Amino acid sequence: MDERPLLLNAGEVLAYLEEVFPGVVGRFDVIELAPMRVRMRRRTGSGDIRPGGTVSGPAMFEAVDCGFYVALLAMIGREALTVTTNASINFFNKPAPTALICDVRILKLGKLLATGDATVWSEGQAQPVAHATLTYAIPPRRP
Amino acid sequence: MDERPLLLNAGEVLAYLEEVFPGVVGRFDVIELAPMRVRMRRRTGSGDIRPGGTVSGPAMFEAVDCGFYVALLAMIGREALTVTTNASINFFNKPAPTALICDVRILKLGKLLATGDATVWSEGQAQPVAHATLTYAIPPRRP
Amino acid sequence: MDERPLLLNAGEVLAYLEEVFPGVVGRFDVIELAPMRVRMRRRTGSGDIRPGGTVSGPAMFEAVDCGFYVALLAMIGREALTVTTNASINFFNKPAPTALICDVRILKLGKLLATGDATVWSEGQAQPVAHATLTYAIPPRRP
Amino acid sequence: MDERPLLLNAGEVLAYLEEVFPGVVGRFDVIELAPMRVRMRRRTGSGDIRPGGTVSGPAMFEAVDCGFYVALLAMIGREALTVTTNASINFFNKPAPTALICDVRILKLGKLLATGDATVWSEGQAQPVAHATLTYAIPPRRP
Repeated sequence: MDERPLLLNAGEVLAYLEEVFPGVVGRFDVIELAPMRVRMRRRTGSGDIRPGGTVSGPAMFEAVDCGFYVALLAMIGREALTVTTNASINFFNKPAPTALICDVRILKLGKLLATGDATVWSEGQAQPVAHATLTYAIPPRRP
Repeated sequence: MDERPLLLNAGEVLAYLEEVFPGVVGRFDVIELAPMRVRMRRRTGSGDIRPGGTVSGPAMFEAVDCGFYVALLAMIGREALTVTTNASINFFNKPAPTALICDVRILKLGKLLATGDATVWSEGQAQPVAHATLTYAIPPRRP
Repeated sequence: MDERPLLLNAGEVLAYLEEVFPGVVGRFDVIELAPMRVRMRRRTGSGDIRPGGTVSGPAMFEAVDCGFYVALLAMIGREALTVTTNASINFFNKPAPTALICDVRILKLGKLLATGDATVWSEGQAQPVAHATLTYAIPPRRP
Repeated sequence: MDERPLLLNAGEVLAYLEEVFPGVVGRFDVIELAPMRVRMRRRTGSGDIRPGGTVSGPAMFEAVDCGFYVALLAMIGREALTVTTNASINFFNKPAPTALICDVRILKLGKLLATGDATVWSEGQAQPVAHATLTYAIPPRRP
């Protein structure tokens, strides 16, 4: 939909994510990155697993939020002041205690706001476990 | 994703929409219907056009809400008590004063809740003007 | 929460709403306006009533959207280019076929984005029928 | 709004939260609990603080999600299968690296769904940092 090219490749944008948010180092892989979309994998550790053998809500929030951040910064470059303004998540089924796969689409890439969605699966399963929409504010460019 | 077949075809579900909501008679066409998804066209009339030549917010709300209703009832049949419990719409650009095209996906079809999303375009344009997520409550089945 | 005064009074902001959106002339009353909040009344007509004697979803969307517009423009003045970027509505109960009362709060009034919520009742009833959150984009000021 | 009494007091509901979600033991205090509402305090630790001295998004998600869980289970009792179906968060300002205060209201308490909102502050500050709406599915009662 949007003809703009990627400004960062998968390795560059993942390195930048881990530089800005050191708390997530080692948690994410970029499976496939293309203009306006990314497929990410979020590993889960013992701190993410809830009784009953499912993944916690905050871990799923982090997956969609970091997934959208990666898709967006790959398009606009290293804009550290880009921040989430809205995240709305629908939870469908309890995820299995495995890695999460997260498909992100940017639907609108404006000068000041970017909006898109993310669909989340437990790795290896066909039915999604959650879907989110996200909006980020992009800092105004210096002239 | 979901293997269930359609219970109603395009003509049947559109007739049922217009029976339950007579206020929308003549406003919608079903362009393409398949299990778990539909493409709808909502015509716009003088009552839907806002100054500056754009389509009103309530008309866009009606487009995504009726679009999801059609996708869902085609899967579950004539369940008149099915009601919207949440609609969340992100508006990207002002639509042109033309018909709206609305692509609906059902992402989760549970026994009591169904959730999905809708992407909206001005007819003939490439960039979407809005995206929505919707949740409907399905009445419990009589045993 | 926010110490700024009102820039427009109830009569001024209602007149401006009807100037910008002539389709809603005569539909709204401002019951009470204060900094960062407003109570509005939306009349309902035959076009808003659905079979079963309830108010249509698009009419409820219009109530919360115009309610937030009034609360916001009373704070920032006649900024015609202010637009809705997100509206998320939870529907609780079917409204009675009467006027709607809508209480709006602005929770964040930034330079470029304003966000708040709206609770909706059928006039004269104690239990709310819906609750919405709304975000508006405010056009950048000319220097 | 809702005349039902509390089924659990503050100590009971907090103990149940920590039993069901052992990962949050020691993180939450109940400041004030009343029918249909609660004020919670979420402590923040080194794992929650982001560069620049702010609280992470997943920690804010956990605050509103657990806050609503406490308000709801105090009304309906120990229903372990109660699950979040939607959480929509608007982020206003970066929180200070302190505890979060979270005010939760239940707006609709139905048999199968409960919906409400949560406003979040950095402790000791006047302007909210975030606002969320949440919906939970309640398991059907055994007859």
